[in-house]
Amino acid sequence: MCDFPTIDDIEAARHRIAPHIRHTPLLRADRIEPSVGCELFLKPEMLQVTGAFKIRGALNTALQLPPERIARGFISSSSGNHAQGLSWAGRLLGTRVVLVLPTTTPAQKVANTRALGAEVILYDGDTAARWKEVYRIAEETGYETIHGFEDPRVMAGQGTIGCEILEDLPDVDTVIVPLGGGGLISGVATALKALKPGIRVVGAEPALTPKYHRSRSSGKRVSLPLRDTVADGLRISVPGQNPWPIIERHVDEIALVDETDIVAGMRALARDAKLIAEPAAAIGVGALLGGAISVRPDEKVCTILTGGNWGLEDLAALYAREPSAIEAAS
Amino acid sequence: MCDFPTIDDIEAARHRIAPHIRHTPLLRADRIEPSVGCELFLKPEMLQVTGAFKIRGALNTALQLPPERIARGFISSSSGNHAQGLSWAGRLLGTRVVLVLPTTTPAQKVANTRALGAEVILYDGDTAARWKEVYRIAEETGYETIHGFEDPRVMAGQGTIGCEILEDLPDVDTVIVPLGGGGLISGVATALKALKPGIRVVGAEPALTPKYHRSRSSGKRVSLPLRDTVADGLRISVPGQNPWPIIERHVDEIALVDETDIVAGMRALARDAKLIAEPAAAIGVGALLGGAISVRPDEKVCTILTGGNWGLEDLAALYAREPSAIEAAS
Repeated sequence: MCDFPTIDDIEAARHRIAPHIRHTPLLRADRIEPSVGCELFLKPEMLQVTGAFKIRGALNTALQLPPERIARGFISSSSGNHAQGLSWAGRLLGTRVVLVLPTTTPAQKVANTRALGAEVILYDGDTAARWKEVYRIAEETGYETIHGFEDPRVMAGQGTIGCEILEDLPDVDTVIVPLGGGGLISGVATALKALKPGIRVVGAEPALTPKYHRSRSSGKRVSLPLRDTVADGLRISVPGQNPWPIIERHVDEIALVDETDIVAGMRALARDAKLIAEPAAAIGVGALLGGAISVRPDEKVCTILTGGNWGLEDLAALYAREPSAIEAAS
Repeated sequence: MCDFPTIDDIEAARHRIAPHIRHTPLLRADRIEPSVGCELFLKPEMLQVTGAFKIRGALNTALQLPPERIARGFISSSSGNHAQGLSWAGRLLGTRVVLVLPTTTPAQKVANTRALGAEVILYDGDTAARWKEVYRIAEETGYETIHGFEDPRVMAGQGTIGCEILEDLPDVDTVIVPLGGGGLISGVATALKALKPGIRVVGAEPALTPKYHRSRSSGKRVSLPLRDTVADGLRISVPGQNPWPIIERHVDEIALVDETDIVAGMRALARDAKLIAEPAAAIGVGALLGGAISVRPDEKVCTILTGGNWGLEDLAALYAREPSAIEAAS
């Protein structure tokens, strides 16, 4: 299997998943614009069927499997949006989904994952050991392993967001994409650069753990200690192995975003766009609010809001307090 | 001037306002469906340009005026979504907007209204006296009076929402509309019944002040004492005069919704649809959650989410606490 998706793979993904997912609307964020100094557009994937973009990649992968392999079930390691996407895909196709999670996973996340219909196996070991266990179980049972960002079929599925943005806003100048494992940005950047080579693609990561930024200046993937960024969806210590060369080729800039700006982004999206964003989803707006990305007043900037899966109580705390109070408390 | 809009007026309004407003998406609320027992669709007008539907009616009225009357300015009485809609229309057309508000209006609402570019005149007197003052000033200055719900041009503008719902979901069975002054439901019901006579239109009002329900059973408009419903956007003591006969003719049912259910609706929309709804906007979902409207499992029900203009701090309080705690505190 090739380790990167082509624009043809992404176009094929689009047709494959279209009957099951939403072409989310592209919303102009008029009321945030005075604070960011450009024309601002939002791609609100929290309005996606599962409340996050991850269903695109999970479903694109699952739908390429022959029926007998689908019937055996899927396995992965995630308690976040990929778990939701994969569980949803499993339910759609009537097959089991198994997720191997660290024993340190909060009980609530384990419960949430089980509530989606997935089986949870708790495993004591670091990320590498856990994935070894995933592959061992897959070997033994025949479950199909669907990795959240290393799989080029997953990247191709996520890349369909790039096609939708260009279809709805052909004259977009810049697209901002949150950087976690790198599956989203590698797919989206591949699509955008193939269809509109002059476009600017910016990755945004928490300044607390600048793994992409550091890796880019080092010329190789750098692993950094995990830090407790509010953007838990982007909490990862090293750029994904397969996404990394794609990002180096297609992503023009890496922006580092402070915790206070991420929270300010969430608040701006709630107050002025009426959308509930999880912190990872708000990082692009946060980058613009904090000046981490240079823009011109007539520049059309689109930022991908990856999802909205955060508890109401946590939102309440962020909405109630001033951003500076949040940082001081975290 | 005729005191009710026709379907032709509404179709004309659609073309008139189309260049300036958003055709908001129709979103299926899959994750709320298990709690309400029907297929649920949302018309999220909090994603409208001003964060609420009111711009449709204000703009439809303003755009029908000759340039010399536009140039004189607009006047009305509202510190809520109609004030926002009218101010936005005034800014678009480059003319002044004057709002006459009670001296009891909270300072924050006065500040918000001024921040929209409107001039605020504080007036000491009840609703009838205040409107008398509006008409007196209009007479003296030549400002165009644009009433938030009595004006058939305003109703026609709001009615465009009905056309959009039918375009995006032709097989919709039931549409739920929040009942305040009645400008929205009179326009929407006119459009829906003209285009699809068999459709069911349900108005939803706070059970605390059942003015429409009481008026319907009395056969005439009944005025009730104002009560402090959490749905401040629906806080009105008597059905609108011009909307009333239209509602009697076209609205099939009036549902009464408890305060706890309104809050439960807001929470469900935040948690499961990732949308920020003001209480008035959530009343339809609240009605379904509380069983105030009977539905079948295969019934396609659409509820209009009128807007999202609520402070983050107020949202925080509602998201943080259980609905029952809210009611006890209010």
